[in-house]
Amino acid sequence: MKPFAARLHEAMRAKKSAVCVGLDPRLEALPAPLRGAARGDAVAQAAAFEEFCVGVLDAVRHVAVAVKPQAAFFERLRSPGVAALERVIAAARARDLLVIADVKRGDIGTTAEAYAEAWLGGAEFSPLADACTVNAFLGGDGVKPFVKAATQHGGGIFVLVKTSNPGSAELQDLVSDGKTISAHVAALVRGWNERSGEAYGPVGAVVGATWPAHLVALRAELPGSVLLLPGYGAQGAGAADVVGGFDADGLGAIVTASRSVTFPWGSSAAPADWRGMIGAAAEKMRSELDVALQRRT
Amino acid sequence: MKPFAARLHEAMRAKKSAVCVGLDPRLEALPAPLRGAARGDAVAQAAAFEEFCVGVLDAVRHVAVAVKPQAAFFERLRSPGVAALERVIAAARARDLLVIADVKRGDIGTTAEAYAEAWLGGAEFSPLADACTVNAFLGGDGVKPFVKAATQHGGGIFVLVKTSNPGSAELQDLVSDGKTISAHVAALVRGWNERSGEAYGPVGAVVGATWPAHLVALRAELPGSVLLLPGYGAQGAGAADVVGGFDADGLGAIVTASRSVTFPWGSSAAPADWRGMIGAAAEKMRSELDVALQRRT
Repeated sequence: MKPFAARLHEAMRAKKSAVCVGLDPRLEALPAPLRGAARGDAVAQAAAFEEFCVGVLDAVRHVAVAVKPQAAFFERLRSPGVAALERVIAAARARDLLVIADVKRGDIGTTAEAYAEAWLGGAEFSPLADACTVNAFLGGDGVKPFVKAATQHGGGIFVLVKTSNPGSAELQDLVSDGKTISAHVAALVRGWNERSGEAYGPVGAVVGATWPAHLVALRAELPGSVLLLPGYGAQGAGAADVVGGFDADGLGAIVTASRSVTFPWGSSAAPADWRGMIGAAAEKMRSELDVALQRRT
Repeated sequence: MKPFAARLHEAMRAKKSAVCVGLDPRLEALPAPLRGAARGDAVAQAAAFEEFCVGVLDAVRHVAVAVKPQAAFFERLRSPGVAALERVIAAARARDLLVIADVKRGDIGTTAEAYAEAWLGGAEFSPLADACTVNAFLGGDGVKPFVKAATQHGGGIFVLVKTSNPGSAELQDLVSDGKTISAHVAALVRGWNERSGEAYGPVGAVVGATWPAHLVALRAELPGSVLLLPGYGAQGAGAADVVGGFDADGLGAIVTASRSVTFPWGSSAAPADWRGMIGAAAEKMRSELDVALQRRT
């Protein structure tokens, strides 16, 4: 299989899109017909999540290049939720959408190897997703098994460098030797990335779209890393905030939005044609990003 | 339900034990009769893991106070593995063993809430485990949902402060404002802990038993936090290395070992009475810790 970054960039060119749609299903936000599942009924809720997410996939498949299912919302439903997540991932890949599993896993040695095989494939199991997010707090011996799995299976990882939440300042903005901890992580990312002649390697970085200044600095610092930019839409970032994350060709970054695309009805009731409304929200985001990138160049 | 620290300390007194047994099942290390599962067969491997882990539980139930299943080894087997993990956790709790789910989860806002509900219980789902490990790299807004769930359900969390692996130095030992990042995390842990009159609160810390000097400093810095000390046995730490993590009453810490207790046959073939050999390894560890703690006082 071709490397992840190459597959991502092909999709971005073909669809003129930098849109990644976050799949963060919450029962109370689902369209009414899907919301019948009882409180505390994990199996029924998992079925509702799956039906909703497959509806989202159908709505965005021609507009988005990737989807980013958030494992936590499925894991909350225990093993029935995890099984539903697996089916949603398979459904996304069957629709030619790249899948970035937002799992933020991180551990040491053989444990990190097990997580890497779970999500990116290994000696026994084929890849579940195309890429996953990784928390590097434990250091390089915990990240390298993910890099190895990604390299072997044409996958990618996105290491958390600067997250989109306000509390990210507490540790990530501490300064050591004149650099923030986020900058230290970025330097490690640069070292872990094995570009092997490609413009972009398998090790990307997560940088909150809510921090435009960080974005520009990290784009320069990490020329071989695809940037995954969360925080667009409901978390407050707009198209003008994210353009600094892209390279001169308008590649090297994808922007992810969850609520603003998948729950565009907000606190109102979802319309009968909820899929159409989601498709329109994804197209609006695609177009906003496209205009902002065109304007820049 | 009584708070986690109170339940832990009752068990420690009753069993004269500070032993936590890590459940890190790997197919190639299992006793031969359990090893028939085919490569790539997640369902069969999950059944083998479950049978092995329940055997471990039976072998250590009177000697260990807690078990620490490592989620990664089950997650590698996808949803059948997660279902097996749930059954292993239920089997442990049915045997009066406390369960610390080693998941190292960490995320922001509503996502962290979902993870917290998955492992520690929430509005809809009752707790799966008694406690879980948490990665605080994203900051307090990602940790507080876990603290809330733990407080409401008599559970606990163990925040990664200084991990046992060599690579932990890369980020955790960076110095900012005269303190390591680990020390900064420890200061945050102290702030997040809600002791509400109890000697120990719900927020504990993971400190590698491989770092005895850190242990003593963190015991003093975190008087209200139970310390979870991994790295005993196969990773090289011994009883003398961990005593500094305990308070004057020999409480406030538990020591976790995985391979040295659950695979005491090393690279040899497991004996027919593998449960007996595991029970003896757990008892040896219990006794070593007990002697070291007695000697200290």
